[in-house]
Amino acid sequence: MDSKPILMVGSMAFDDLEFPVPTPDAEGNLRTRFDDVVGGSATYAALAASAFAPVRVVAVVGRDFPEATLDMMRERHIDTAGIERADGLTFRWKGRYHTDLVNRDTLDTQLNVFANFRPKLAPGYGASPLVLLGNIHPALQLEVLEQIEKPELVVADTMNFWIGGEPDALARLIARIDLLIINDEEARQLSGIHNLARAAKEILTRGPKCLIIKRGEHGSLFFDSEGVFAAPALLLEHVVDPTGAGDSFAGGLLGFLARRGRYDHATMRRAMVHGTAAASFCVESVGTLGLRGLQHQQVTERVERIRRLTHVGDE
Amino acid sequence: MDSKPILMVGSMAFDDLEFPVPTPDAEGNLRTRFDDVVGGSATYAALAASAFAPVRVVAVVGRDFPEATLDMMRERHIDTAGIERADGLTFRWKGRYHTDLVNRDTLDTQLNVFANFRPKLAPGYGASPLVLLGNIHPALQLEVLEQIEKPELVVADTMNFWIGGEPDALARLIARIDLLIINDEEARQLSGIHNLARAAKEILTRGPKCLIIKRGEHGSLFFDSEGVFAAPALLLEHVVDPTGAGDSFAGGLLGFLARRGRYDHATMRRAMVHGTAAASFCVESVGTLGLRGLQHQQVTERVERIRRLTHVGDE
Repeated sequence: MDSKPILMVGSMAFDDLEFPVPTPDAEGNLRTRFDDVVGGSATYAALAASAFAPVRVVAVVGRDFPEATLDMMRERHIDTAGIERADGLTFRWKGRYHTDLVNRDTLDTQLNVFANFRPKLAPGYGASPLVLLGNIHPALQLEVLEQIEKPELVVADTMNFWIGGEPDALARLIARIDLLIINDEEARQLSGIHNLARAAKEILTRGPKCLIIKRGEHGSLFFDSEGVFAAPALLLEHVVDPTGAGDSFAGGLLGFLARRGRYDHATMRRAMVHGTAAASFCVESVGTLGLRGLQHQQVTERVERIRRLTHVGDE
Repeated sequence: MDSKPILMVGSMAFDDLEFPVPTPDAEGNLRTRFDDVVGGSATYAALAASAFAPVRVVAVVGRDFPEATLDMMRERHIDTAGIERADGLTFRWKGRYHTDLVNRDTLDTQLNVFANFRPKLAPGYGASPLVLLGNIHPALQLEVLEQIEKPELVVADTMNFWIGGEPDALARLIARIDLLIINDEEARQLSGIHNLARAAKEILTRGPKCLIIKRGEHGSLFFDSEGVFAAPALLLEHVVDPTGAGDSFAGGLLGFLARRGRYDHATMRRAMVHGTAAASFCVESVGTLGLRGLQHQQVTERVERIRRLTHVGDE
């Protein structure tokens, strides 16, 4: 593959998931509870990006994390040398989805080995041209960023917890990145402005060259100095598990950019659509199942579907 | 104007509106309460459509409805011969918008002269090629439809109240129309299916050739046998009053179709974008203020903005 490598830092986890309707597992059996589902932001993003580009993951897992998952990632050209296996249990999240498969309640969070996570870059990682700083403490995101020599593109994700709890560290991080990816409620919280067009303008004054606002099933918005782009979500007939959709979106987006090696406005528009396509495979199955075998050609086919979905045509 | 005429039936009303933030009135003074705002589905739809095509309105107003509003409509090539002035008070709706300017509470509804409304077509109206059956009792929508000789395109709007309360009359109506326009929650209620792609498929088996699902600030979806089209909403920096946005969308959509005189899939895509553009003028001011002087060229300029908003570009 002729793509540039992407460094990713984020969580690797077990998720215990409850769904509102019976859902097929890998064997086709219908269940509403799925325990010990392999998840985490780095896992989803790495699997999605690996359909496009080589990926290097910086994360921590416990002694209970399956070696078979790491093997599967390596088969997809994901470098796992930066994944530390610590003596303890893997980070675990338990959630219950509402009937709309959008809203969800967190039933339990066990940080486990993630509590003392200090990201360590494996040899050679410091020269990574593309960097995805997944949703972890902004001070740790900065710590990783400082170890990268000359990144071409730095992308960060964050969440309400850090926006509210670590505003200073987050401000320092945001001032140093190229692209911030957050959802609509986080954009409102960060800017203090309800209107998304004005919220985006305000956030762009804080340092990042560009901003993506995710709106779940309603797609996503891209903002930079050249304008705005709205990417629709695909209208899927069978949405099963939205866990990891945002991380898969980021992974697909960075994967496309790594393959192109350019980060201009026009390329970002196409990257958004590729991220959307990657995320659509994620939500069609429980956990990472829809991403494990994902091939570039499959993503490209969905990109064509998205183009048709929004094609207006000439007068 | 070389456009075909559009017949519209719907409500004409006074709205008493409460907004979460101070909002400029026609004189530029900031207020949160606006009483006696001229509204109603037929009013909004007719004003939006009249930027494109001649419009004929079938509605009822009371003795308190301002003649100046009817004069203004006539100046916009809106035929008001079908607007009956009954002896009583005009239909009145009172609502309070939440902070998000999306959700709202109905504080009061006074049907007044609307309670006994039996739509009467003025001479010549029976030959109208395009028909918009606004959101009134489905039996009345049918009654109007039966008086149209050979309509080329019949579009109907409805709401949760009729879906739940008048399913049989509504089923008879839906079986006879070309295009049904509803919002996402109404599509779910009507089909009994949460997933919008599957809900749309189900609704299309009930008779209409095509379906539009409105999603407010998230845009709208068009479905027919040839596929799906997603129109984004414009990202406006100043949304003031969403009242009438859906009706303005329908008006702009029908206006464009009346001007084109074709109703094929490709034309419907462009009509959706024109409806979106018309609605964007509606929500930028209180009541019908943004529509009263609306010119075709202004709509066309916003259509270009929408095209740029979703333009993906080539690989």
